[in-house]
Amino acid sequence: MATVKNRRILLGRRPTGEPSEADFALSEIELEDPQPGQMLLRTLWLSLDPYMRGRMSDRKSYAPSVQIGDVMVGGTVTEVVASKLEGFIQGDIVEGRTGWQEYALSDGAGMRKVDPALGPISTALGVLGMPGMTAYFGLFNIGQPKPGETVVVSAAAGAVGAVVGQLAKIRGCRVVGIAGAPEKCAYVVNELGFDECVSHREPDLAEQMEKACPKGIDVYFENVGGRVFQAVLPWLNDFARVPVCGLIAHYNDIELPAGPNQVPLLMRAILSHRLTVRGFIRGDFLDQQASFFEDMSRWIREKRIKYREDIVEGLENAPGAFLKLFRGENFGKLLVKVATAVKA
Amino acid sequence: MATVKNRRILLGRRPTGEPSEADFALSEIELEDPQPGQMLLRTLWLSLDPYMRGRMSDRKSYAPSVQIGDVMVGGTVTEVVASKLEGFIQGDIVEGRTGWQEYALSDGAGMRKVDPALGPISTALGVLGMPGMTAYFGLFNIGQPKPGETVVVSAAAGAVGAVVGQLAKIRGCRVVGIAGAPEKCAYVVNELGFDECVSHREPDLAEQMEKACPKGIDVYFENVGGRVFQAVLPWLNDFARVPVCGLIAHYNDIELPAGPNQVPLLMRAILSHRLTVRGFIRGDFLDQQASFFEDMSRWIREKRIKYREDIVEGLENAPGAFLKLFRGENFGKLLVKVATAVKA
Repeated sequence: MATVKNRRILLGRRPTGEPSEADFALSEIELEDPQPGQMLLRTLWLSLDPYMRGRMSDRKSYAPSVQIGDVMVGGTVTEVVASKLEGFIQGDIVEGRTGWQEYALSDGAGMRKVDPALGPISTALGVLGMPGMTAYFGLFNIGQPKPGETVVVSAAAGAVGAVVGQLAKIRGCRVVGIAGAPEKCAYVVNELGFDECVSHREPDLAEQMEKACPKGIDVYFENVGGRVFQAVLPWLNDFARVPVCGLIAHYNDIELPAGPNQVPLLMRAILSHRLTVRGFIRGDFLDQQASFFEDMSRWIREKRIKYREDIVEGLENAPGAFLKLFRGENFGKLLVKVATAVKA
Repeated sequence: MATVKNRRILLGRRPTGEPSEADFALSEIELEDPQPGQMLLRTLWLSLDPYMRGRMSDRKSYAPSVQIGDVMVGGTVTEVVASKLEGFIQGDIVEGRTGWQEYALSDGAGMRKVDPALGPISTALGVLGMPGMTAYFGLFNIGQPKPGETVVVSAAAGAVGAVVGQLAKIRGCRVVGIAGAPEKCAYVVNELGFDECVSHREPDLAEQMEKACPKGIDVYFENVGGRVFQAVLPWLNDFARVPVCGLIAHYNDIELPAGPNQVPLLMRAILSHRLTVRGFIRGDFLDQQASFFEDMSRWIREKRIKYREDIVEGLENAPGAFLKLFRGENFGKLLVKVATAVKA
């Protein structure tokens, strides 16, 4: 087999504040044939997620930063083009973290075969992938919602939030979403079955939350931070749980917001209401993957879990699409369609 | 039996900021004989605790405020003077919440007989009472320290902190205290067996914490808030646990501290280190009281748990003594000796 030309998107420089397309660089290299113990993968779908903003900065976090000049990290669904690796054959569909590029060589580490019978393969990056697991692990392990309780989720129309709300409905909860655009609010109520949705653009967000949650809030699934969290805090019930999996409102912060310092207010709420605030990432619960796939694929078949994808065509459009996440301009799981499967 | 004169300390007015003696009022009334189903109790020991500051304000919390003109709430050890209540006889020693007064009538609700064989009866307000339970329940249920982990506790020489540190030593942890005065630091290291103690008066507190915790911090038992918490936060390890049972640094706040707003910093730490921050009070774990009494009384007998009492004589001195808590001037469990048991 001849070498393939591999277009890649690199981190060109570290952004200050909101990233721009100029922070990325397109580059093309040739990829050699796979060596024994390797396979060559062709990217079909690239996932764009808020956490990537953290990898672009050199701030210490739960995962290492992308180095300048390196391929941007990212979850992908790929197709095996050629394999000298046991257990993988040409045509296999594989999910992993091969990044923002059209091809990748892999020794199989961290790669998982996708079963196309469970659903469209792109869902391996959405409801049946990292965002779905984040919702499922965080809600059930930390949120622990009980029937009749009120669950609030921010970024409600997003890849994680939409699943959180539907899972909470399956558990018999009252579910209130928080989203930006009116069409997103309409979607989570009318399509996904949330009980209510409040727009975070409302100037009196805290009062809207109080109205939407007449019995207070038992679980607040935190995706956002900022003034959304502030508006939710006063209505948290005793023993409420706050799983924290994202803080997109702050990822582009270049400095802390102006005062006063609200930490004492937050800590007092934690103490007087006996709150549990707990951060997590998907990787903390990997031992629960089997039950995730079993439950979620069944609920998808039963149409109890619905999903929406926001698809952009072509790797070169990934940077521009990525920026939409921070303006709330995506509507559903943001994906880049990089190529079509040969088999398809 | 004749009526008894009962001296009481009432909440005279709601303090703004730091309380003063003028916020309290001494009053004397006559108490009738106990009616059928009641007993007359004579206060021997009154406990003074930081949480009482919260009860003096009308801010919503986990327990109702004291009304102006009402007797200040407080835990006491009392002696039964006369009883028309089944199960209690004259001379019994009883622990409960009869407040800042020399006598009380009680129908037995919330009262617990104290077994003088377990230790001096005053310990029913300290190591064998609310502060001891707070330490034991919070550390073991929320802190969940494992052998070899590093446990940091603020207000280390206080009624709760001193027990937390000793319990963590029993569990095989490295224990670092934070206290104010040098003699308190010396006490927790030399008498209580903490590995190290850092004074929160050090200007470079965060660096001192880093030095004292070379392997980071796995459990931070939060009694204090404010700049102590800020100094601890950077050194919390992945999956660290933060039981929050008190925030004495903030109880007298009349407004939030100046900016910047550090909430995003705290939330980012919670997310990236997958922290668990959880508020609690003793009453949340009352089903574990039996194991508490069993473990603690044994450890006290074995001298593995030591304690220190800071005793003030006379009910009339309670207000002045109470104020010492907020200046860190007490050294050990703060108690008012109101009377001596007739039996003693």
